[in-house]
Parts: sequence; structure tokens; C-alpha cells
Amino acid sequence: MEWINKSRILIVGLGLMGGSYARALKRIGYHVSAIDKSEASIDYALKNGVIDEGSTDADRELISKADTIIFALYPAIIVDWIKQNQSDFKSGIMLTDVTGIKGNIVYKIQEVLRDDVEFIAAHPMAGREVCGVENSDERIFRDANFIVVPTERNTDKAIKWCSNLGGILGCRKVSVLTPEEHDKMIAYVSQLTHCIAVSLMTCNDNEKLVDYTGDSFRDLTRIARINENMWSELFLMNKDALLFQMDAFIDELASLRDNIRNEDVEALKEKMRLSTKRREKFINP
Amino acid sequence: MEWINKSRILIVGLGLMGGSYARALKRIGYHVSAIDKSEASIDYALKNGVIDEGSTDADRELISKADTIIFALYPAIIVDWIKQNQSDFKSGIMLTDVTGIKGNIVYKIQEVLRDDVEFIAAHPMAGREVCGVENSDERIFRDANFIVVPTERNTDKAIKWCSNLGGILGCRKVSVLTPEEHDKMIAYVSQLTHCIAVSLMTCNDNEKLVDYTGDSFRDLTRIARINENMWSELFLMNKDALLFQMDAFIDELASLRDNIRNEDVEALKEKMRLSTKRREKFINP
Repeated sequence: MEWINKSRILIVGLGLMGGSYARALKRIGYHVSAIDKSEASIDYALKNGVIDEGSTDADRELISKADTIIFALYPAIIVDWIKQNQSDFKSGIMLTDVTGIKGNIVYKIQEVLRDDVEFIAAHPMAGREVCGVENSDERIFRDANFIVVPTERNTDKAIKWCSNLGGILGCRKVSVLTPEEHDKMIAYVSQLTHCIAVSLMTCNDNEKLVDYTGDSFRDLTRIARINENMWSELFLMNKDALLFQMDAFIDELASLRDNIRNEDVEALKEKMRLSTKRREKFINP
Repeated sequence: MEWINKSRILIVGLGLMGGSYARALKRIGYHVSAIDKSEASIDYALKNGVIDEGSTDADRELISKADTIIFALYPAIIVDWIKQNQSDFKSGIMLTDVTGIKGNIVYKIQEVLRDDVEFIAAHPMAGREVCGVENSDERIFRDANFIVVPTERNTDKAIKWCSNLGGILGCRKVSVLTPEEHDKMIAYVSQLTHCIAVSLMTCNDNEKLVDYTGDSFRDLTRIARINENMWSELFLMNKDALLFQMDAFIDELASLRDNIRNEDVEALKEKMRLSTKRREKFINP
């Protein structure tokens, strides 16, 4: 594999995801460096063997030596970082990211990027309810789906390279979607679910819940513990697709509510039969 | 414990919950009999040692020998069953149930019940996404909450007896709530969550989801596989409390949607901070 020969990987943004990439890639034998504005994060990662080298600013030497750069920054700042630092990129390198939305950043990155390097977007569908490199863990990739998100500007070589990366990280399944397909899907399976979990937690202030609840409430609110800075960015950068899914869900739930209000038992049962069928297909495809 | 001396327990309705009660109680040494209209269920339970005796009709001998009767029937038919069979009850026995709603049945049962026996309602917050005695499992009570739901007609002795029952089954925590408190709570932590899971599954027909999704969608739809006959009864029998919680949730989610539409980042973050705080308190009370 060509990938294996590219030995120096630079991770920009060393939080939960950046740290997890670093751990997974370093264990396989890559030289991993990182840039993060937090001195505590870089210190922790160096002390604990998460990275080989690190810097709290855009160190020109680290950047110019990198054969691969992985952006694990908050989405809104990736484009500016590239604009400011791409003059130091080695020619021919591959760049990728971990961002949860695509349409709103991939085209912008490819628009400003030097012609002699290539950016191929990726989204590892993995995470934890906690943040920071201290909580990073390469095991988050086990059983995770990895989505490669090429545009028309990307080469087949880059798509293959990025698919390999997903496998190297240990992801269960690698798929390829366009930015538009990705954002529509993610609005439904990830962003809408987080909006639901947050609203379920905030719509009632009963503090003694833990004494009474079964597993269902616990499951539905696991992701209600949420990084508000990152997710508010993600929601707004995928605004149209998310609003569409939120409206579809609210309409569906309002229709179920009306079935209950009108005691329309047949309509109620029909919805439950459909959800049962789909859920069964989902777990046993 | 007085309970231990009462040796013959009759379970009416031998499905998932009835079967799980039977297994838990028989293992401790009680004589457990069951009545269920399904011959397959009674046969299975006898062959597999889930019960000591069983009948597919309201066997007068089984009924008249019982020191305790536990109703694990669908809620709508309990009152009629009691009316038809209570002339065979032994004097002084204790009756209880496992039903997920209370206000709409407890008062009716106590209204029609003979004066020399006592019915004390209970709700074990345990279950599985499958039904039938074949899937019954006494381990569902581990870590489960058990709620005793007395009315003003109940004696302290019955409340204590029923609390003991929760402990004997192996439940983690036993609480006492009024029927009204119970139904309001259950509308939120259980019924609303099931409505959300169903609607999340039915509002979008993307069949390739499994290739892309992370854990959040999987968690939020676990309970979308649902027994439509039982749950439509439960929803309608707790209609007012459930509609109240559904409206509150829909309003909250619509408000989050409006924050996203208007790009009101501060309001968005405020909701996420509140949900994070509440979720943390929920897991570490």
C-alpha cells in the first residue's frame, strides 16, 4: 500500500478526534505530529506517547515535513488555517478532515487550495460524549462507519487512499457519498437525533427521574450531554438539510399525537408496525 | 418476612413480564401457577420449569388456592377478569399487577373488588423489545426500578408487602408514587420516548442507513421495535398525560428548530448547556 510508505502525518487540532487518530496511527508505526493552540493538550499528548512531536503554533517545520495532514479542527476555521499555511505544504501531499458536515466546507477548501496537493473529505462516524485529547481512544473506530466524501475535483487515487485510511483506523465499513448525500444523511441520523435528545432533556425539569426511569429514557438522552460550541457550528453549517429533517420529524410526531388525541387506534398501530419493520431491517439488513 | 410464608402465587397472563415474574419467584422457592389463554405459552412454561401448574382457562382450583395473584394481562381486560373470577378468591389474599399505566385501572379495580382482599398496584420498570414467555428472563429486574403505586384505599401492610416484592424480584430501587404522579412520570420517561423512537423511524425511508449511522441513531431507535397492541392500549389509557408531554416536547423541539432557522447561536448553546447539565445530574445524581 502506498499509504504505508508515507511516514509523516500531521494532525491539526488535537481534541478527542485528533487524539484518537493520533493513537491509532502511531500504534501502526507512523510518525505523528500535532498542532493545537492548547499547550496542555500538546503536553499531555507528548507525555503520554499520543504524538511524536507537537507545537502550539503553526510550526513551519512540522508543516513542511508532513506527507499527510489531517484536520480535526472545528469546521469554521479550517479554510482560514489552510489559506494561512498552505505555502509551507510539501508538494504532492494528501489532506483530509474529520468534520461532521461537508457541503459547506469541502468546496471552499478545494477552491482555495494549491493545485499540487489534494484535499479529500472524510467523516468517521465515531465519537464520545466527552471531549479533549485526554479522552481520546482509538477504540472509538471499532464498529464505526467511515464515509469518504469526494467532489468532482477529487482523483480516484485520493478516494482509494482515503478509503484505505478508514480501514487502517479500524473502521468496520467504508462508504463513499457525495457532499450533498452525506449532509442529508447526517442531518437525519446524527444532527436530528442530537436535537431530539437535547429537547427531551430540556422539555421537563423533573429532577427525581433517575429513581423511576427504565432504559429507554437513558438511551434516548445519552447524547444530550453535548459540546455546545462544536454542535452549534455543525447545526448552522448544515442548516437547510437539518431544518428539512426536523420539520419532517415534527410533522410525523404531531401526526402520531393527533392519532392518540383522536383515538385512531388503527393509524397508531400502523405507524408502530412500520417502525418495527424498519427497525428490524436496520439491525438485520 | 410474612411474604415468604405465603407460598402459592398465581400469575394471570403469562407473557414476557408474567414469565419473568414466574422465573424469579419460582427460583426463590415459591409455588408458581399461571393462567393464560395460550396453550403454547402454558405448555412451554410447564416443559421449561417456568411454572409448577398452569391452565388455559380461569381454573377455579388454581384461583382458590392462590395466596397472591399477580396480573400481567393487557390493561384493558384486568377489571373484567377480576369481576368474573373474584368469587373464587381465598379471603385475605393480596393482588398486584405489572401494568404501565395506573390511574385508569387501579381505581376501577379497587371499586369492584371484594372487601376482604387487597389490590396494590406496582410497575416494574423493566422489559425487552420482544414478547412472549419464551423470551421471559428474570435478569430484566436487575438494575430496574420498581414503583409501588398505592391509593388512599391501600393499607400500610400492602405497601410494605409490595415493596418487599420489588426487592425479592431483584429490583435495584423501590419507590412509592400516587397513580397520578406515576402516570405523569411514565408519560414522560417511557411513553413519550417510545413515540419519539417510532416517529424517528417512520419519518424517513432511507434503507441504506445501516451503512452510515453512528451509535446515536441506533440508541434512539432501539425501542422503535414495539408491540403495537399493548402500546396503543397504554397510550390511550394515559391519553391526557401523554398528550401533555408530547406537546411540551414538540414545542421545545420547534423552539430549537427556530433557533437554528434564525441562527440564534446563544439560544442554541443555552439549550445545549441545560441539557448537558441535566444529563450529567441524571447519571451522577
